[in-house]
Amino acid sequence: MEFKKIIEQVVSEIFSSMVFLDIKSLDGVDPEPMQGSMLSGMIGLAGDLQGTLLIHLPDQAAIAITNAFLGMELSAVDDDVKDAVGELANMVAGGIKYLMPENARDIALAIPSVVRGKGYSCEATGRFERAGVVFELAAGRFIVEVQIKDSGSLFGR
Amino acid sequence: MEFKKIIEQVVSEIFSSMVFLDIKSLDGVDPEPMQGSMLSGMIGLAGDLQGTLLIHLPDQAAIAITNAFLGMELSAVDDDVKDAVGELANMVAGGIKYLMPENARDIALAIPSVVRGKGYSCEATGRFERAGVVFELAAGRFIVEVQIKDSGSLFGR
Repeated sequence: MEFKKIIEQVVSEIFSSMVFLDIKSLDGVDPEPMQGSMLSGMIGLAGDLQGTLLIHLPDQAAIAITNAFLGMELSAVDDDVKDAVGELANMVAGGIKYLMPENARDIALAIPSVVRGKGYSCEATGRFERAGVVFELAAGRFIVEVQIKDSGSLFGR
Repeated sequence: MEFKKIIEQVVSEIFSSMVFLDIKSLDGVDPEPMQGSMLSGMIGLAGDLQGTLLIHLPDQAAIAITNAFLGMELSAVDDDVKDAVGELANMVAGGIKYLMPENARDIALAIPSVVRGKGYSCEATGRFERAGVVFELAAGRFIVEVQIKDSGSLFGR
């Protein structure tokens, strides 16, 4: 299965079973750097899959997800929003691990971090491959991507 | 050994043997959020030590380290600087792993990422412990810290 398909499946399942918000993936849309105030949840992957899982969200999307996920009525970014974004990255990374081929599932997770600011970039260094999907919900678009160490193709991407 | 001592030892050895720049650790100075244009190299740790290693540098310090490390004469941040910051995070994480007690050395590294911007924050979510050290070189101060999942004390910190 392609990495993009894995991301789509994992994120869709998490949103329908735990976040309870309608989202759709935008197949033809390439992930592009965001403007404005935003958050990025990220978590390191080690072992069979060595890389980073990242979720980039504009403030409004992060707030909407937190409100739906935790049953809150926040209107600004606070520690609850950061925690929710970190937990979302954690859940997506766990889901990706579960959907990897059986011989490539020995993956250990680091702990989630959240970057918060405006107009920052956030990228792996060295040689790496990436696969990203843009999702849309009522409160805006967000991006989920994996950046994986380039060590020959594990399977088709 | 305390985590701060491990960081001091690892960073000092890397700077004297590979970067060739004089640094000193500022024992009494607490790490504080930086202002201005900066970079953060970060890399996830999984296994016996689950967390993130982060290095926060103002642009000028990152450029000076890159020039010394790679024998270049850069005056602005470019991809070489980002790669050097990522590689520095990678080397520090590798050094920390080596200095852990023998029964806690089964640590797998993710891949380094670099955040670049101005006035962003970069923190673990959930319950975590941190240990950070401020270093000084001619081009400015930088911070090296570990953020570790709080799961009972592995050893004295």
